Amino acid sequence: MQGLAWNVMKKTAKKPVLALTMGDPCGIGPEVILRALAARRARAAARFVVFGSEAVLRRVADAFAISLPRLSRVSASNVRVLERTVAIVDDVPCPAGLALRGRVTKKGGDASFRWVVAAIDAALAGSVDAVVTAPISKEAVAKAGHDWPGHTEILAARTGARKPVMTMVGGGLRVALVTTHVAIADLPRAITRGNVLRTLRVVHEDTKRYFGIRRPRLAVCGLNPHAGEAGRFGTEERTAIAPAIRRARREGVRCEGPVPADVAFTLAQREKYDAVVAMYHDQATIPVKTLAFDRGVNVTLGLPIVRTSPDHGTAFDIAAKGIANPGSMIAAIQMAARMACFGRRR
Amino acid sequence: MQGLAWNVMKKTAKKPVLALTMGDPCGIGPEVILRALAARRARAAARFVVFGSEAVLRRVADAFAISLPRLSRVSASNVRVLERTVAIVDDVPCPAGLALRGRVTKKGGDASFRWVVAAIDAALAGSVDAVVTAPISKEAVAKAGHDWPGHTEILAARTGARKPVMTMVGGGLRVALVTTHVAIADLPRAITRGNVLRTLRVVHEDTKRYFGIRRPRLAVCGLNPHAGEAGRFGTEERTAIAPAIRRARREGVRCEGPVPADVAFTLAQREKYDAVVAMYHDQATIPVKTLAFDRGVNVTLGLPIVRTSPDHGTAFDIAAKGIANPGSMIAAIQMAARMACFGRRR
Repeated sequence: MQGLAWNVMKKTAKKPVLALTMGDPCGIGPEVILRALAARRARAAARFVVFGSEAVLRRVADAFAISLPRLSRVSASNVRVLERTVAIVDDVPCPAGLALRGRVTKKGGDASFRWVVAAIDAALAGSVDAVVTAPISKEAVAKAGHDWPGHTEILAARTGARKPVMTMVGGGLRVALVTTHVAIADLPRAITRGNVLRTLRVVHEDTKRYFGIRRPRLAVCGLNPHAGEAGRFGTEERTAIAPAIRRARREGVRCEGPVPADVAFTLAQREKYDAVVAMYHDQATIPVKTLAFDRGVNVTLGLPIVRTSPDHGTAFDIAAKGIANPGSMIAAIQMAARMACFGRRR
Repeated sequence: MQGLAWNVMKKTAKKPVLALTMGDPCGIGPEVILRALAARRARAAARFVVFGSEAVLRRVADAFAISLPRLSRVSASNVRVLERTVAIVDDVPCPAGLALRGRVTKKGGDASFRWVVAAIDAALAGSVDAVVTAPISKEAVAKAGHDWPGHTEILAARTGARKPVMTMVGGGLRVALVTTHVAIADLPRAITRGNVLRTLRVVHEDTKRYFGIRRPRLAVCGLNPHAGEAGRFGTEERTAIAPAIRRARREGVRCEGPVPADVAFTLAQREKYDAVVAMYHDQATIPVKTLAFDRGVNVTLGLPIVRTSPDHGTAFDIAAKGIANPGSMIAAIQMAARMACFGRRR
């Protein structure tokens, strides 16, 4: 980690600098960011530069009586984060009237997309130590002419990462996903030896790097009930998962499996494993969200930068209500700060 | 509920009579039954008739220094359960030497199968109020020439039930399964409108009947990530699940969905729903086992009798160690006793 942020950090107890992207201005992103910045345990973890709209933040703070931090405007090319203030990069058109609106808008989609890109660039340049993203709306981003399914794809393309790995953290679990938004019918084709192997390599390296675990132990889930029970219910364990595990072990990755998924999480909770590698979306999200709803964190491994996010969406339906829970955003901030500190120790 | 058991119950504070099948004598079944019978909270819930081998129980009790209850032999055709004793139906050949053996045997498979059949017949005859089954080994049962994949199929065939519904209870959740031991690749074919609808009907009726809930609210999970997100990731929500929900609602079943599975369990925990209907094995077992390992209970709905079981297997690997946890068996006993009481109130 280099550049200005690192120098500033050395003077200020080495608190990392986090970029917070405001997300869709019509959703709950501005609200959870304000509530998080008002929470002592978030402020204690880091210094902040928001990529977003000051006008929207003010509107939301007024509407829900949330205290607004002292904001200091900075430019994207020169991110300077002073003590006791929150820096803000506010150079994208975004009308204050979008705040609380709770629906898909072209302007909201455009602004939220640009903030993400600017924050990624700041992280790549070393001016921030990590990026924490508030939720964007796929539909709004598409409406503005940017055709991206989600944050992960934007991050991968912008940073040149070959295998970004979505990882859910919460309830004492770290769960990495081999596949993400794939229909169940398409899973058997998507679970290949190469895909599992690439995921194992990323999880191994980044668990060491960002979670400070020297020789992480990984549990690799099966795809089928009882991990296929020796081929009785499905073959992917034998054709893809077990071969990937064998190869990864030869490369020095400490992994075991295929473990029946309904056992893996309990074993991980009892600290037999440092992380679980799940084969598909719900296999990972069910245990984490069930154990840690409103407190789960989404982490993207396999990137050259640190990136976390809360595990909820824009929640347009409650954007005007002032009832959004900042728990997951606060957890995402704390996680990003810790990962940034571990990451730069090397 | 009729017959002798009911008469005896009336005299003895209406404690229901539970049939406990001993399961495979080589596995942990005898051990968890003995440990459960030694636990006050299990004994307080019911009176018991074990379908199993007294010699095996004695051997296990000796080996692990578990106190043996006073046993009184009864015949399968005349199950009389006295106070302060545990009745035992022990009329199937089963050498004591099978105890602690921890492997697949023909004799163990044969005996464990016959005990299950005898207990089902006793429940159908009304001489017991519910059946709690300790684990059997599919392989051992097959070796003895009985070709059954598991308890559920034996129960369905013997009782003439058309749609037995495996249901997991634990961690504040009741989760019923539309499919059980089906490979992920075969799920799209198995999730049909008819199959989902039949499950909803059974869960509706039996949740009323056995859990004492007058108008149960059911959450119906989607199959795909985000319940398919309007057809973006998979079509089964639109072709099978939603149509089944609409039809069930017209029949008076209070059900909602398809709900994304990673949200359904949290909503259910927060008591928005009385039960969750899951589409496949791991979708149900992951949350229940993660929240309630060693305490989860397996319930078969859709039968003319009450049947529960612990959510673990024969665990041959630890059969000789004396470390089996009876938590799930005790929970299965308590659940069967409650269901029997609710069931007979009607």
